[in-house]
Amino acid sequence: MASDHGSHSDHGDTWTGHVPPVPFEEYSERYSAFFKMRRENGVIELRLHTDDGPYIHNWAAHNAWSRVWQDVGNDPGNQVLIITATGDSWFRGDPDKTWQKPIADEEPDYIFQQTYDGWKLIESFVGNLDIPTIAAVNGPGIHTEFALLCDITLAVEEADFMDPHFLAGSAPGDGQALVLQALMGTKRAAYHIYGGKPIPARTALELGIVSDVLPREQLLDRAWELAEFIMQRPRFARWATHNILARPWKKLVAEDFGFHISQQMLSTVASKELIPIRSLIADAGARKIW
Amino acid sequence: MASDHGSHSDHGDTWTGHVPPVPFEEYSERYSAFFKMRRENGVIELRLHTDDGPYIHNWAAHNAWSRVWQDVGNDPGNQVLIITATGDSWFRGDPDKTWQKPIADEEPDYIFQQTYDGWKLIESFVGNLDIPTIAAVNGPGIHTEFALLCDITLAVEEADFMDPHFLAGSAPGDGQALVLQALMGTKRAAYHIYGGKPIPARTALELGIVSDVLPREQLLDRAWELAEFIMQRPRFARWATHNILARPWKKLVAEDFGFHISQQMLSTVASKELIPIRSLIADAGARKIW
Amino acid sequence: MASDHGSHSDHGDTWTGHVPPVPFEEYSERYSAFFKMRRENGVIELRLHTDDGPYIHNWAAHNAWSRVWQDVGNDPGNQVLIITATGDSWFRGDPDKTWQKPIADEEPDYIFQQTYDGWKLIESFVGNLDIPTIAAVNGPGIHTEFALLCDITLAVEEADFMDPHFLAGSAPGDGQALVLQALMGTKRAAYHIYGGKPIPARTALELGIVSDVLPREQLLDRAWELAEFIMQRPRFARWATHNILARPWKKLVAEDFGFHISQQMLSTVASKELIPIRSLIADAGARKIW
Amino acid sequence: MASDHGSHSDHGDTWTGHVPPVPFEEYSERYSAFFKMRRENGVIELRLHTDDGPYIHNWAAHNAWSRVWQDVGNDPGNQVLIITATGDSWFRGDPDKTWQKPIADEEPDYIFQQTYDGWKLIESFVGNLDIPTIAAVNGPGIHTEFALLCDITLAVEEADFMDPHFLAGSAPGDGQALVLQALMGTKRAAYHIYGGKPIPARTALELGIVSDVLPREQLLDRAWELAEFIMQRPRFARWATHNILARPWKKLVAEDFGFHISQQMLSTVASKELIPIRSLIADAGARKIW
Amino acid sequence: MASDHGSHSDHGDTWTGHVPPVPFEEYSERYSAFFKMRRENGVIELRLHTDDGPYIHNWAAHNAWSRVWQDVGNDPGNQVLIITATGDSWFRGDPDKTWQKPIADEEPDYIFQQTYDGWKLIESFVGNLDIPTIAAVNGPGIHTEFALLCDITLAVEEADFMDPHFLAGSAPGDGQALVLQALMGTKRAAYHIYGGKPIPARTALELGIVSDVLPREQLLDRAWELAEFIMQRPRFARWATHNILARPWKKLVAEDFGFHISQQMLSTVASKELIPIRSLIADAGARKIW
Amino acid sequence: MASDHGSHSDHGDTWTGHVPPVPFEEYSERYSAFFKMRRENGVIELRLHTDDGPYIHNWAAHNAWSRVWQDVGNDPGNQVLIITATGDSWFRGDPDKTWQKPIADEEPDYIFQQTYDGWKLIESFVGNLDIPTIAAVNGPGIHTEFALLCDITLAVEEADFMDPHFLAGSAPGDGQALVLQALMGTKRAAYHIYGGKPIPARTALELGIVSDVLPREQLLDRAWELAEFIMQRPRFARWATHNILARPWKKLVAEDFGFHISQQMLSTVASKELIPIRSLIADAGARKIW
Repeated sequence: MASDHGSHSDHGDTWTGHVPPVPFEEYSERYSAFFKMRRENGVIELRLHTDDGPYIHNWAAHNAWSRVWQDVGNDPGNQVLIITATGDSWFRGDPDKTWQKPIADEEPDYIFQQTYDGWKLIESFVGNLDIPTIAAVNGPGIHTEFALLCDITLAVEEADFMDPHFLAGSAPGDGQALVLQALMGTKRAAYHIYGGKPIPARTALELGIVSDVLPREQLLDRAWELAEFIMQRPRFARWATHNILARPWKKLVAEDFGFHISQQMLSTVASKELIPIRSLIADAGARKIW
Repeated sequence: MASDHGSHSDHGDTWTGHVPPVPFEEYSERYSAFFKMRRENGVIELRLHTDDGPYIHNWAAHNAWSRVWQDVGNDPGNQVLIITATGDSWFRGDPDKTWQKPIADEEPDYIFQQTYDGWKLIESFVGNLDIPTIAAVNGPGIHTEFALLCDITLAVEEADFMDPHFLAGSAPGDGQALVLQALMGTKRAAYHIYGGKPIPARTALELGIVSDVLPREQLLDRAWELAEFIMQRPRFARWATHNILARPWKKLVAEDFGFHISQQMLSTVASKELIPIRSLIADAGARKIW
Repeated sequence: MASDHGSHSDHGDTWTGHVPPVPFEEYSERYSAFFKMRRENGVIELRLHTDDGPYIHNWAAHNAWSRVWQDVGNDPGNQVLIITATGDSWFRGDPDKTWQKPIADEEPDYIFQQTYDGWKLIESFVGNLDIPTIAAVNGPGIHTEFALLCDITLAVEEADFMDPHFLAGSAPGDGQALVLQALMGTKRAAYHIYGGKPIPARTALELGIVSDVLPREQLLDRAWELAEFIMQRPRFARWATHNILARPWKKLVAEDFGFHISQQMLSTVASKELIPIRSLIADAGARKIW
Repeated sequence: MASDHGSHSDHGDTWTGHVPPVPFEEYSERYSAFFKMRRENGVIELRLHTDDGPYIHNWAAHNAWSRVWQDVGNDPGNQVLIITATGDSWFRGDPDKTWQKPIADEEPDYIFQQTYDGWKLIESFVGNLDIPTIAAVNGPGIHTEFALLCDITLAVEEADFMDPHFLAGSAPGDGQALVLQALMGTKRAAYHIYGGKPIPARTALELGIVSDVLPREQLLDRAWELAEFIMQRPRFARWATHNILARPWKKLVAEDFGFHISQQMLSTVASKELIPIRSLIADAGARKIW
Repeated sequence: MASDHGSHSDHGDTWTGHVPPVPFEEYSERYSAFFKMRRENGVIELRLHTDDGPYIHNWAAHNAWSRVWQDVGNDPGNQVLIITATGDSWFRGDPDKTWQKPIADEEPDYIFQQTYDGWKLIESFVGNLDIPTIAAVNGPGIHTEFALLCDITLAVEEADFMDPHFLAGSAPGDGQALVLQALMGTKRAAYHIYGGKPIPARTALELGIVSDVLPREQLLDRAWELAEFIMQRPRFARWATHNILARPWKKLVAEDFGFHISQQMLSTVASKELIPIRSLIADAGARKIW
Repeated sequence: MASDHGSHSDHGDTWTGHVPPVPFEEYSERYSAFFKMRRENGVIELRLHTDDGPYIHNWAAHNAWSRVWQDVGNDPGNQVLIITATGDSWFRGDPDKTWQKPIADEEPDYIFQQTYDGWKLIESFVGNLDIPTIAAVNGPGIHTEFALLCDITLAVEEADFMDPHFLAGSAPGDGQALVLQALMGTKRAAYHIYGGKPIPARTALELGIVSDVLPREQLLDRAWELAEFIMQRPRFARWATHNILARPWKKLVAEDFGFHISQQMLSTVASKELIPIRSLIADAGARKIW
């Protein structure tokens, strides 16, 4: 069915005119500035990158994510998703480039787009991907919420996890806090978020935030090994198992995430400050937050 | 922002490389066999049709819907959605063409696709459209669940609403019952669903299932009038108002719909019957169900 | 399977030793002082009675209900349930007999049993019956909560519905208020409950509390007609349709009913009064509450 | 207990040092510019007013409400609450006085206070009042959400109910939409809110938004009659009945209201417009919105 | 009350005709092929067995469980429940005996019964037992979900816990995954379920899946010691404490379990495979899964 | 705004008449028998005490708490809350003084007040404090539920946490069990509560019940250091971050706490025993429970 609707011609003409989803060749090319994609036997790997080096945060990628999840999810050729990044960091950023003036000083449409993109990248991840998902977190970085929303999250020893929003003068509403609350508990999450404290990979494993910690050279191999193990089960079993295991995320996002993101954006816009507040993150470089 | 990211060049290079969503010209053409689309001043109208006449149910359209909602929702050029159909019926079908043998006799991939499409068309509608939505139901028909999931639902006098699943020997898990339970109440919905009873437009209005009932010649004009009224408000107001008014649907779908669709498909597959059971719907033509 | 496990002897010995549920002959006899039961073609009818006349409330019946629902639900010979009562009233009581001294003056075990029975009769009704349920309310009376918890509720013109708890000096925690809140809305339910106002059958129909109102002589015939219509559908369809239509009740009872019943019993015990407070219901006879 | 802790001196010294709540004489005086309060036999009446005439909206009152509910709720001398307003209108306002410049132009602390007051007036109403509540809506007006959050809502024929936010260019997040969605249903609420359509008292009664509609001269008498009827029941019964009947509001506010108010304030601040947008409400005077 | 309703003869005749629940002697005999039952001072012990040796899974027992929980729960002579199994394993099975052909090849009634029994054994456990429950898990085995749903779960060192569904080609919808998600967290549960990884008793203790780990010779003594400790508290305290501690399970089952079981059965039936897929569990014997 | 409404005189007269909340000087004095309060730079510290020594439980304080939280929450001068106690214990009590006769023997108004105070102290804590909250638990004691409901909970090595209700013959409905279930998991909480087992501070840290464990001499310094760190962020960020991190508590209290407290009070009143049952807590002194 998935790969060839023509084979169902014996069911009469009600499938005539089937419009196939965007093919791998097209979307892998379209988003190639943000993701290197490869696929083998139903397993698709998305690798975050910037110029084939470590990913540097930029609004163009941030805007594209929700649509990447759609295209990957629509394509029945994708049966297991692996998501990883490049080199030794998951995600880097330069506050001075990413946030150049207080968001309150931007045009309404600019504020809208930033809000909308931040919201949809989470909603689209849990709403449009109905296959087993595996993250392979290859190093420290922020914005790990979609790595943590995957069914399975592998990490290298050097990885860490943190929510820098409050540290930097804003509120933790982009999904990272939602995921940390759910995985490490309300009390632990609050302490780490108020303090802007990173959680090293080993601690994250003990707390149930990640599934396993591995040496870098084994990370991707293990992800692929898991993906292949999963692929040996019937399609219905993969789908239903993902549905059961990801149901808590779907409910959580529907019930709470809209509140989180709205509180973050409201507090950021209404405070009228340039966030991250530079004085608050003066030592961020040393602490490798960005 | 939405229409021209270039104008934000003063924000540095973090928007460089922006990948725009699929443009109206492309998706309106791609799905033109199922939907006639037109757009004016931010209002997009989708008209269900088959060969420019009344829509005849077919699996190709059923499969495409979830992606249509994505493309429409992704495009910031769309600010209000009107959805309607063609001629004097919302939706027609021929059971003998649509269901030719028991679904239990199909291949697993076929059963999968049918299940998946039925699930995603609802999830995608509530998850990927973040703008005010208006349905203009131009006549009787089944599969009105996405018309009812719109923020506003206008209907002609001749329209009616029903859930034919139980009547035909299956279970009402495709979203129609979910919507009817929420809008008309548990007790009324149960009676109509067990009995396969249609709800005429006027009754639907009294019960809070539709927003208004109009003569056919005024239907679309009223929808456009409403859309234009809505368009006079700021983008943020439109978005936030839709978010508030559609929140009950998002929660309902996350909490209950997976159960509904799974029960429907399990009961249909496991009963091994050819559904609709022909003897049960022998008078369906006379009753204009299909 | 249901009727003859022996037919599965070809599946080897894993069904050997099957213990059948209590048979109709046994439980229909055991509870015959409270319910007249009859069964035809999978439709079981339970008729509340006292000495084959109108049912007079008594604690023995109140205690038995939760187990009646279990036995009926366990027996695969029961595929649709009709529940009704005798003569021209649903339920009568004599406060002076039923409540003879303040419950605070009873032994803890007595208070426990009253609390427990009141709780379990609701939980058991929604938790142990997985078949379509139809109530045929043959006249006025209190304790209609399990009639209203049925999928379909038919009533005679003379029936009415009320929650007398607050009127009588207690709190409305036995399930009736829970059901009224869900069916007629929070605001309407509050007004009727504070005021101890009965809802006539016709009004109940308009408000979505009952499914239909009929002349007495047609009541049971209509219930059986519906049951037979339902029986024409496959077993899986009946089961799944009931599951979908009754899901709101299961969720509601799990989330809210424990609070309701605990508040009722706490307020009744702790107030130390003889409830119903006689002065408050002095005109109850005239108003046909009991 | 409530009225005289000294009577419990036989329980030893663990009640020694009891700090009584703020007495009626003190809080009724403190908030006398916004509310005329009177109390009789445990029934407290709060009458909104401005200079003893119809209430004119002002931020000082808006700020005080959450604390009024606390003081009223803390005082065990208050056993039933009646809330009403003065003359022939519930609530009047002059947009030109109330909103003089875009809120985005205000200082962060000003935006904070407005947000906070709007949030707390709802949370405090459902969280700090644990007694039966009766609203007597004496005329048209906006900001009826706390009248509708009362257990019982009486209204005069001339009253109407509306949510003017979207009409005026903002989002309906102040509680009015939350209450309308819950009482009149998702579909009807959406249509009225998008259209800025008022709901006349009679229609509100039919839709379950209000409990009863009365001629003006009977309004307060009926409220007091109800209060006295309620007062005849034991304290535990009044408390538990309110708890049961108001539980849906407590859950609704906890789950959804934070989202509503955050969306309203975010959309209002980020749109940077002067809201109400003057052109959108040009005919508001004629339509008696403000 | 519980033990002798006759003692309430002073309350008049409203208890006349009390029908006692099925007595211990009767149900302990009826289900003796699956459970050895003994009772002392209000503590009832149920021991799973097959021919007085380790329990071997069979459909007759699977079918009976929901009714065993009812009979145990109905009998006020049972005040604390201990559930354990025989010898050095909790639960054994032989896939070749238990599943002999694809379930898709069975008759609809057979599929129904398997689905129904799997559903009801969980619903009945949380819905019909209102007393403190203690599991004493005496060895490894699958189908530990009702051991884990007990208030307290003790285990021997050699016990382990796993969900073998996905490993074997199906979906984890029988309650085990639901319980593991709730107790060990979403992330850990997903990794163990996708990988079919058993959780040794010590690890289960660290993760909060079991209450304590003990040498085999102390296991039952400890369970009885706890039961006796619990029995020293008043009946109301035992009941209310169980209600409070088990409330999360009641809510979870009402909200999520129907989805889980429906997904499992749908995926198993629709995949048309013989599950467990033999090639996937070829080494199951060595791994002591079954 | 918060400190000087006069500065908004340019907004016209809609703020005229602002009634400021009760000032620090007044409420800190009013509750000084239970709390020593001090405030510096927006950080308010509340220290539980009795005669400036360790706090000894008494009903006057228990009654006052809900109003203390209101006054603290209303005052915009309070931006971070630290709550601690005096000397080397959090909370002490003497059962013989606190509970002198069975509560069933008290007047209804006494039972009401005890119930009401126990309920409101929790509801008010989560409903009326909208600022970051830090508990500094200075030693063992019971009634730690509001310490655990704080965003951050620091404890000395000697502190421990327990729920003594079931041990003493009652049910764990005062909030402590609710919090323990949420923080340590359903299974662990049940075992500790049935067994009346205290959780030492170090274990509490490992289980996510407290945020950090410190030597006594560092406890308060660390709390103040955290408070000052938090104060460096904008007011909007502090508020929104608290809102996000405390949302799980608000939802939990709305959904479950009413059931908990009602079950506790019902079981305590209806059992008619003097609770704590003296024989059950004979060794409580040795175990330092009270």
